[in-house]
Amino acid sequence: MGEMLGNFKRTHMLGLVREEQVGEEITVMGWVAKKRNLGSLIFCDLRDREGILQVVFTEDASKEAYDKADTLRSEYVVAVKGIVRTRESVNESMPTGRVELIGSELKILSEAETPPIMIKENLDASENIRLKYRYLDLRRPDMQRIFKLRSKAYMSVRAFMDQEGFLEVETPILTKSTPEGARDYLVPSRNYKGKFYALPQSPQLFKQLLMVSGFDKYFQIAKCFRDEDLRANRQPEFTQIDMEMSFIQIDDIIDLNERLVKKVFKDVLDVDVEIPFQRITYREAMDRYGSDKPDLRFGMEISDLTDAAGGTGFKVFNDAIEAGGSVRALCLKGGASMGRKDIDRLGEFVKTYKAKGLAYIILKDGEIKSPIAKFLSDETMSAIISRMEAADGDLVLIVADRNEVVFQSLGALRLELAKKTGMLDGSERFRFAWVTEFPLLERDEEAGRYVALHHPFTSPMEEDLELLETEPGKARAKAYDMVLNGEELGGGSIRIHDTSLQAKIFGLLGFSEEEAWERFGFLLEAFKYGPPPHGGLAFGMDRLVMFLAGTDNIKDVIAFPKNQNAFDPMTEAPDKVEEMQLSDLGISVEKQQ
Amino acid sequence: MGEMLGNFKRTHMLGLVREEQVGEEITVMGWVAKKRNLGSLIFCDLRDREGILQVVFTEDASKEAYDKADTLRSEYVVAVKGIVRTRESVNESMPTGRVELIGSELKILSEAETPPIMIKENLDASENIRLKYRYLDLRRPDMQRIFKLRSKAYMSVRAFMDQEGFLEVETPILTKSTPEGARDYLVPSRNYKGKFYALPQSPQLFKQLLMVSGFDKYFQIAKCFRDEDLRANRQPEFTQIDMEMSFIQIDDIIDLNERLVKKVFKDVLDVDVEIPFQRITYREAMDRYGSDKPDLRFGMEISDLTDAAGGTGFKVFNDAIEAGGSVRALCLKGGASMGRKDIDRLGEFVKTYKAKGLAYIILKDGEIKSPIAKFLSDETMSAIISRMEAADGDLVLIVADRNEVVFQSLGALRLELAKKTGMLDGSERFRFAWVTEFPLLERDEEAGRYVALHHPFTSPMEEDLELLETEPGKARAKAYDMVLNGEELGGGSIRIHDTSLQAKIFGLLGFSEEEAWERFGFLLEAFKYGPPPHGGLAFGMDRLVMFLAGTDNIKDVIAFPKNQNAFDPMTEAPDKVEEMQLSDLGISVEKQQ
Repeated sequence: MGEMLGNFKRTHMLGLVREEQVGEEITVMGWVAKKRNLGSLIFCDLRDREGILQVVFTEDASKEAYDKADTLRSEYVVAVKGIVRTRESVNESMPTGRVELIGSELKILSEAETPPIMIKENLDASENIRLKYRYLDLRRPDMQRIFKLRSKAYMSVRAFMDQEGFLEVETPILTKSTPEGARDYLVPSRNYKGKFYALPQSPQLFKQLLMVSGFDKYFQIAKCFRDEDLRANRQPEFTQIDMEMSFIQIDDIIDLNERLVKKVFKDVLDVDVEIPFQRITYREAMDRYGSDKPDLRFGMEISDLTDAAGGTGFKVFNDAIEAGGSVRALCLKGGASMGRKDIDRLGEFVKTYKAKGLAYIILKDGEIKSPIAKFLSDETMSAIISRMEAADGDLVLIVADRNEVVFQSLGALRLELAKKTGMLDGSERFRFAWVTEFPLLERDEEAGRYVALHHPFTSPMEEDLELLETEPGKARAKAYDMVLNGEELGGGSIRIHDTSLQAKIFGLLGFSEEEAWERFGFLLEAFKYGPPPHGGLAFGMDRLVMFLAGTDNIKDVIAFPKNQNAFDPMTEAPDKVEEMQLSDLGISVEKQQ
Repeated sequence: MGEMLGNFKRTHMLGLVREEQVGEEITVMGWVAKKRNLGSLIFCDLRDREGILQVVFTEDASKEAYDKADTLRSEYVVAVKGIVRTRESVNESMPTGRVELIGSELKILSEAETPPIMIKENLDASENIRLKYRYLDLRRPDMQRIFKLRSKAYMSVRAFMDQEGFLEVETPILTKSTPEGARDYLVPSRNYKGKFYALPQSPQLFKQLLMVSGFDKYFQIAKCFRDEDLRANRQPEFTQIDMEMSFIQIDDIIDLNERLVKKVFKDVLDVDVEIPFQRITYREAMDRYGSDKPDLRFGMEISDLTDAAGGTGFKVFNDAIEAGGSVRALCLKGGASMGRKDIDRLGEFVKTYKAKGLAYIILKDGEIKSPIAKFLSDETMSAIISRMEAADGDLVLIVADRNEVVFQSLGALRLELAKKTGMLDGSERFRFAWVTEFPLLERDEEAGRYVALHHPFTSPMEEDLELLETEPGKARAKAYDMVLNGEELGGGSIRIHDTSLQAKIFGLLGFSEEEAWERFGFLLEAFKYGPPPHGGLAFGMDRLVMFLAGTDNIKDVIAFPKNQNAFDPMTEAPDKVEEMQLSDLGISVEKQQ
């Protein structure tokens, strides 16, 4: 067992000792980061959450402390009492680099075996070992920095929401399965055998009910759960900044959230975000960027060549257009220098987005080189080049296909080219935008019905209400996403607050009246008793922190994340449980086939 | 469908309109609380989160608004534009009682059916109907008050913890089952069929690991889960203010938490709590109050009569003492006036705590009346009366039994008498105390092993380490509870941070080394790599809010609680799920027998 703290009381954090303390006796505690025995001197770097301080033990100052210091090894936990003095050889790279502590008393509070991972910045270790020894991984200064920043972000968000009159309300974790959306995590009930709670995918229904309750403004930093196959940057449990307001319209929510984001970036990073953000409709975002979360840090917009390229006798173009698709293209400035192989690779790239091919036009040394030139008249070629504003040295890349494929492939190609050609170097650090007027519904051809693009509670735009009767797929929603650097940071909508409209939407989504009532009856019932107009928004807290921390790995911003199989290598959850626990619940595990 | 907000924008909350606004045109929105049509005038009380404002519609001001107002019914949602004016007949009972709004434009945003419960204070409705229509129950002003107060409490706690250097860190909800303690809620895994996550009973292990990680000071307002049979004031999911600190001792935690509580009571209730709190050891609390959470708002302490009452020849006393028990008593001042039947009822009362009987001595009109007088010598009787400091008019109530029974029955009797005789009327509103030096272990006679009184990670007191070898049941722990008005508000301990001591405790708790490693291996492993001394505390957030709100029903402070069967009458969770959901998880529901 290590020594006891006894009458030692920490007076300073290691990383915060400065020249003001010179001459003072202080007591510090922390981990041994490094030890060097130079014979008459033992240098020891001690580490705590705030940083590192150099401690010196000499036989002169204390023979006992010196001897004990000689036994120290990495990651031992110690307490040191001593006098701060100015350091002879200043280390400007450390905030404490002008001072050192002369140790006169040393207690070894815990010993340590050699850790299986190094406690250092930018560790290059396998994810599995980092997760298994997460408590050591978190000891690394870069991880500590992220969690300090995350803590600051929580405080900043809450202070803002509180000041704006939002009430923080906790909604239940043990709730009801609503099979619309992703797969639910289920929790078997002991009292009602054969029945299950579900963990919430979001507090959506509860926050709407809080509006019916007259809470007026609600927020919560809420845990949400989705039992999905984990893609990169997905976790089975994740955190949302969730909010809802009554008696408001879209502009109110947008304005509030711009100010929220501005405050958080200021508080956490001391970065000034300019507001208001650019707004762009879904239609325009798709047309210009091939994406509903456009990265606006660079241009290279998509152009529509359908009219220029139509009726040319080129079968590929004609077929696409006749099938209701389009011909669209990007112009890569200076792209003409790209080799044939690289262009072929771009062709392969768009095929992963189901594009049948990638046509191109190279403008080089005053000449036009293109494998499709032979199919096009000179006028058509000129019209295309003129539409693309292409000049000598540029490369035009064309996709002709179903619109969905055209947008997806060119949108992805645009991002890929920007990355490859360094367009993002030195660009704005944070470029925000709102995407608005999303479609209300999407056709699920397989299921032969509509699905909600946002969620089933999203209000259609008033001007599109009639379309619900005639062409529901064309109706736009009062929905909006906040986009940052081409990623969705948050999204929300004005909700339906009318039982009959809500019932109509459920109908379009393929629910019979009975099914709708079985699943969402309490919401429909609630709407009978005076629901206010309301709307809200939810931010991905984890994603926000990723941006703030400058990491692209969600596991870096969650203290104890799961791996790609939703498994925690540290606790080994999920795990077997005792047979009695299952029989208590009235469930059994099916024999593996 | 109701009318749209259109160009209406709320300018004021209803409950906040004051004389400053007289003459202004304002726009308000809310629910119709009351409507009276007086012919030429329609009075309408509109309600929002902040209160009620009287709105007046006249044909003069607007015929259109007047006609529409005539159609209003309770709980309709409306928006009103109009001019504020001074009220002729001031209503001093309302904060808005000096003004009224003359409605010139009225929009009916939502209609409402007659609500199944009344939207009013102090509603007298069955719990089931309140929970089924929770969104209406929450619309009642007394419920809104509670949730405003709860929101304030969150903010107050977090601001304090942040200022004190605590980092807020989220710990996982999907974690591992640790069958020590209460029953876990389980979540079947889809990726690992036959294995389960468990919902955490507390973040205990994770917060200790965060200390191993060097986070130094952690806090979280955390959801916790216990699948227990619900007694009153228990909920399957509840909220803790959870914290942990490194390099500290008991006094540091106590001091911090006293300041935290002082701040919360000041911020939320504007009440000044005096600190430091009284501290009392577990032993003393049991001896004097028969409880480890003594209510110190009144005296009437328990006295030990064992030596005075021993060797008297009275078999009941002798048997109890010889079996290792004791004879103890309460003196109820003025209790001599109690009738025989009432005293008999007290005898019945202590029997529910397994006491075999309740002896009594009545001091009345200079005489001593007692059914046990004949068994006691005059000296013994005098000694008892003197020890009890009993005077004429008093009643002495005696229990002789096993110590456990003596303490439980007299402790409960003390509270019962205080309630019945009005001792708590006009007493201090909030009386805090710390109970310290809890036993480390309790003997579970049925299981034939020790169980942890606090939890298995609690550190023994240094001076009692040797007792672990000889008489583990006598070892005291570095554990402390915060008690308020006789209820436990929070509890914590200094933790073990040594693998070998932790392994020894697991051994005393009856775990084989293998079992201990299987369950808590990651903690034991973590302790190999330099764990700091650490300790912490957790408050029951729901209970704290109950005190702040002055309610004794936990369901009043949780927005969407479950009923006594862990069922939510509103959403009807838990509920059946689709067969495919179960087959995805590889589990099946056992046929009911």
